[in-house]
Amino acid sequence: MSSANSMSLFFSEKFKSLVPYTPGEQPKNREYVKLNTNESPFSPSPRAVKYAAEAVREANLYPDPDSTELVGRLSALLGTNKECLTVTNGSDEILNFAFMAYCDTSHHAVFPDITYGFYKVFAKINNVPYEEIPLSDDFKINLGDYIAVNKTVFIANPNAPTGIALSPIDIEKIVASNPDNVVIIDEAYVDFGAESCIPLTKKYKNLLVTGTFSKSRSLAGARLGFGVACPEIINDINTLRYSTNPYNINRMTMAAALGAIEDEDYTRKNLKSIIENRAFAKGELLSLGFTVTDSAANFLFARHPDVDGGTLYSELKRRGVLVRHFDGERISDYVRITVGTREQMEILIEKIKEILTLARLK
Amino acid sequence: MSSANSMSLFFSEKFKSLVPYTPGEQPKNREYVKLNTNESPFSPSPRAVKYAAEAVREANLYPDPDSTELVGRLSALLGTNKECLTVTNGSDEILNFAFMAYCDTSHHAVFPDITYGFYKVFAKINNVPYEEIPLSDDFKINLGDYIAVNKTVFIANPNAPTGIALSPIDIEKIVASNPDNVVIIDEAYVDFGAESCIPLTKKYKNLLVTGTFSKSRSLAGARLGFGVACPEIINDINTLRYSTNPYNINRMTMAAALGAIEDEDYTRKNLKSIIENRAFAKGELLSLGFTVTDSAANFLFARHPDVDGGTLYSELKRRGVLVRHFDGERISDYVRITVGTREQMEILIEKIKEILTLARLK
Repeated sequence: MSSANSMSLFFSEKFKSLVPYTPGEQPKNREYVKLNTNESPFSPSPRAVKYAAEAVREANLYPDPDSTELVGRLSALLGTNKECLTVTNGSDEILNFAFMAYCDTSHHAVFPDITYGFYKVFAKINNVPYEEIPLSDDFKINLGDYIAVNKTVFIANPNAPTGIALSPIDIEKIVASNPDNVVIIDEAYVDFGAESCIPLTKKYKNLLVTGTFSKSRSLAGARLGFGVACPEIINDINTLRYSTNPYNINRMTMAAALGAIEDEDYTRKNLKSIIENRAFAKGELLSLGFTVTDSAANFLFARHPDVDGGTLYSELKRRGVLVRHFDGERISDYVRITVGTREQMEILIEKIKEILTLARLK
Repeated sequence: MSSANSMSLFFSEKFKSLVPYTPGEQPKNREYVKLNTNESPFSPSPRAVKYAAEAVREANLYPDPDSTELVGRLSALLGTNKECLTVTNGSDEILNFAFMAYCDTSHHAVFPDITYGFYKVFAKINNVPYEEIPLSDDFKINLGDYIAVNKTVFIANPNAPTGIALSPIDIEKIVASNPDNVVIIDEAYVDFGAESCIPLTKKYKNLLVTGTFSKSRSLAGARLGFGVACPEIINDINTLRYSTNPYNINRMTMAAALGAIEDEDYTRKNLKSIIENRAFAKGELLSLGFTVTDSAANFLFARHPDVDGGTLYSELKRRGVLVRHFDGERISDYVRITVGTREQMEILIEKIKEILTLARLK
C-alpha cells in the first residue's frame, strides 16, 4: 500500500493529500475462515469456469470494447434494454465515473456518514465537495434528509456495513424530489434480500443503479460491475469509459459473466443458502447477547456489550476467523461479518462463544 | 460507441466537449485477416491458458490488490525491483494515471503530432493543456524539440503508427534535460526491435516507462499493463490506483500473465517470427513501389503513389483484409498494417497486388 511519505516531487498538488481506500486485508501467511470482504463462499458457476477457460485461448485478440454480447444478455436478465446498460471493471469503476460525470463544484455529492468508505475517496480524487449526512442512532437513513437535497446523491442499498435497506418506494421519493441531480443507487448487495430500483430507471432520467457480479454471482475475482439508467446517462458513462479505458473488460471476465448469467439457477440456489445461513448466524448472535442490525445483505453488523469491536476482531483473527472492524467513531463497537457457509457460521459462533466466556472470566 | 448528441442534462460541463478515443474496428459480421489493431497472431502461451483456466475456479474471492506475486515475478524478468513496478488494467490505465499525476495547468503535456491518438484524449479528460510537436517530414522525432522543453513529455517508443524508435541514448538526453518534469516512455511495442529505457529508471527520478502484455506476450484480450520507475513515482501511481480501483487486475489476468512470464521462450520464438515476417512483408511492399517507414514495431506504416490510404483500406477490407487508416492530414496517404503470420502477410501482398493492378488499369 502507498504512503503519503514517499510520493515523488512531481505529484500534482491536487492529489498530495489524497488518502486511498483501504481494502479488507488479504493475508497470505495463513488460511483463515475468511468473513471479512463479503465474498461468496461458493465457487463461480461451472459454466462461468468453463467459458472463461475457453476464452483465454483467444486472449491474443482484444476484447469487444462494446461488450455487445454481455450487454445484450445482462440487460435481458435485468429486464432492461441494451441502450440502458454499461459494464465496468468492477462497480468501483462505474462509481468513480459517476462522481466524475455528475459532481463538481456546483453539484456537490451527498451520502450517509456510515456507508461504503470509497465514496469519500472518489469525492476527494475528483475534487468534489461532499456532505455526509448522519444515519439515525439505529443506523437508518432518514428519508427526509435526502428529499429535495439538491445534490448528487449516493446511497448504497442495502447500505454497508449495516445491511439495512430502503424500499424502492422510499428511493423513488428521493429521485422524484431531486430532478436537477442524479441519484446513484449502489445495489452491490441487493440480491440478498432487498428490492432493486432498476424498474425505476425507466421512469426517471436522473437515476443510475449500479451493480456487481462480485457478491451474488461469485465473481469478485473476475471484476465485473454494471450500471443501469436511461440511455443518456449510459452514454455519459460510456463517454468517460471510452476516454479512459475502452477495453476495460477482458475476455475471460466477459466469458465468465456470460456463464454466470446462463447459470441463474446456480445463483438462486446459492442466494437461498446465504439467506438461510444469515438467519442461522443472526439467531445465534442474538441468543449470545449481540445487537445485530436488520441486514438484507450477505453480511451481519453486530456488537456485544462485553467485548468491543476491535477486541472481537483480533480475538477472532487469533482463532483463525477474519471479520472486518472499522475505526469510525460511531461503529467502532461493531464488527462486520460476511455470511459464509453453514460450517463457517458454526465455526464463527463457536469461536465467539470462547471469546465471550474468557471476557466474562476477566 | 457514444455520441455527443445524446448526453444527459446532468453531464458535468467539463466533459461536454469530450470526444472519446476510437478503438480499431472489431467487426462481428465476417471473418477477416485482422491486421488492424496490432494484436499478436499467436495464441497466448499454453502455460498462460492453463493458469488462467485454473484461476477462474477461485474467482469468488477478490484478487490480491497488491498483485504481489505478479509484481515480484515481472520486476525480476524486467531487471528491476518490486518497489519500482506497478500493474494496471492495460497500459491505457497507467497512461491515464500519468496524465492525472504529472500534468496540470502548471505542467502542460507535450507529445508528437503523430503518435498514439489516446494521448490527446487523456489530456482532454484531465483538463490538461497540451502541445503537439510536429514530427519531421520523414516522421522522425527531432530530439532538440524535447530538450529542456519544461513540460511533461509523452513519447511512444517505438512511436505509433510510424514504428520508428529512438535510442535510449537520445531518450536519456530528454530525461536529463527536463529535471522538473516527468518523462513518460510508452514501450508498448519495444520488444519487436527497439531498446528498453527500463535501465534508465534506476538513474533518473523523473522517468516512467510503461509497457503491456498485449503485443509481444499475446494477451491483448487479458488487459495487463505495467509501469517501471523510481519507488516514489510508483507510489504516486499506486495512490491513484488505490483511490479509483484497488482491485484493478482480475485473478485470470494475473494468472495468465504469470504463465506468460514463465514461458519466456514462447514469447522469444513468436517475436522472432514477427520480426522475420515484418522483413518479408516490408521487402514485398518496397518491391511493389511502397514507401515504408523503418519500423521497429509489430506493424508497418506504408503508402503507395498510386492508391491513397483510404482507398487501400477499403479495397483491402472488401477483400477480407483489415488494416488501419487514420484521417490525420499528414498521414491520410498511409495505412498501418499489423505484422501477422507469414500466411497472413502472403494474403495481404496478394490482395495488394490485385488492388494495384486495378488501379493501373484506370
